[in-house]
Amino acid sequence: MRIALGIEYDGTDFYGWQRLTEGVSVQGAVEQALTRVADHPVQVSCAGRTDAGVHGRCQVVHFDTDARREMRGWVLGACSNLPTSVAVLWAQPVPDSFHARFSARSRRYRYHLLNRPVRAALDARYVTWERLPLDAARMHEAAQALLGEHDFSAFRALSCQAPHPRRSVLAVGVRRENEQVFVDIEANAFLHHMVRNIVGSLLLIGRGEQPVEWLGELLAGRDRQVAGPTAAASGLTFVGPRYEAHWGLPLEVSQ
Amino acid sequence: MRIALGIEYDGTDFYGWQRLTEGVSVQGAVEQALTRVADHPVQVSCAGRTDAGVHGRCQVVHFDTDARREMRGWVLGACSNLPTSVAVLWAQPVPDSFHARFSARSRRYRYHLLNRPVRAALDARYVTWERLPLDAARMHEAAQALLGEHDFSAFRALSCQAPHPRRSVLAVGVRRENEQVFVDIEANAFLHHMVRNIVGSLLLIGRGEQPVEWLGELLAGRDRQVAGPTAAASGLTFVGPRYEAHWGLPLEVSQ
Repeated sequence: MRIALGIEYDGTDFYGWQRLTEGVSVQGAVEQALTRVADHPVQVSCAGRTDAGVHGRCQVVHFDTDARREMRGWVLGACSNLPTSVAVLWAQPVPDSFHARFSARSRRYRYHLLNRPVRAALDARYVTWERLPLDAARMHEAAQALLGEHDFSAFRALSCQAPHPRRSVLAVGVRRENEQVFVDIEANAFLHHMVRNIVGSLLLIGRGEQPVEWLGELLAGRDRQVAGPTAAASGLTFVGPRYEAHWGLPLEVSQ
Repeated sequence: MRIALGIEYDGTDFYGWQRLTEGVSVQGAVEQALTRVADHPVQVSCAGRTDAGVHGRCQVVHFDTDARREMRGWVLGACSNLPTSVAVLWAQPVPDSFHARFSARSRRYRYHLLNRPVRAALDARYVTWERLPLDAARMHEAAQALLGEHDFSAFRALSCQAPHPRRSVLAVGVRRENEQVFVDIEANAFLHHMVRNIVGSLLLIGRGEQPVEWLGELLAGRDRQVAGPTAAASGLTFVGPRYEAHWGLPLEVSQ
């Protein structure tokens, strides 16, 4: 049978999601824990790979197993075999036609900026510090140019292995809450470093070093060389994917 | 001259606020950093000592110095000499009659509970996990018995060195936000472990194991033996003290 899991993780101490020959990955930790519970080797497929230092609020994976366990057993068994920085939130049986990656309609990311003169002490793992004052309204206005389907080559890492650079941004917003500035973005899928590269350019606009129209111009120019630098990993959290309601998954990953 | 500082810290890796002969304390780290900036030994007095693992959102300290530095210099100089888990938020000259501890009118604490079947992965340093469902409205109602001046012996640690057990609770509230439950409490001052002991008893009420009236009965009984266990340190944050407006301190610590 096929089982879907919701997974939360603090990416600070991992080399990223993907299992590697060297370094500790979230995927490796999850597979090791599930292998213990299943009593046979388990491999998982995820909704969205995250880079080193990036966090997951509700990553979704699926795996196949013949082991018969209650869903509660998968959750508690995996949690007790995982490091404290990773937790399985829920487990649910899904049809064999479900695929954590290919069934996902969209993915959501949140970028968390701490905007004040002094660096973070509390929450330092989860924010990116920006010392200079940011105009969140300007950033929000600029970001609206991303909406819809575009060629996102301007915000694509050199290392990106996607077959093509077209993606559809479904929603994007920037808002301030006291010293915090949040960038929320939902797209059908993302290119490698796409969110961090967009935020890197939005920072230049927020600081007043580039005009509001610049983001749209970068997008149209499709040239990674002229866009802003890649923003740090620590402020980025993969909020999670979204699936069609008919899969019956928990609300936080369902339409 | 006398200078007041606002200090934020992640208490996870400290033995608590107070400088000790053994173990790393927040006070020790702050004094070491200020000593470097001042170029003479600096000792600080704080608004409220916190235990091992307890965090500070805006601890306030004062110290005396003859060194002439811009206030910005104290902030940036201290920050660059502090570990990443401690930051100086602001520095401000104060009259010699100001005392971080004795001038404080009140102190505020927040206790952060994560209430869901599965332990925390993200934010694990900043929350206390409660697996069983909590009725936050019941906890809020129970907590109102604490308002006003009382003998808080029922919630006082054996190790408490305060000369008397009377404290005035000015405000207390419990509220839920999705999976989070927050306990906010402000008092003129607190006994050792007072917040964590109160939360430990509120948890029993929230889980339905004790009636709403129990907290008031505990308070009246003044017997630490019958109250609930001490809640974990990780969920507790010292939000900060409050001073009279005439001191002219930043809004977050001013009336």
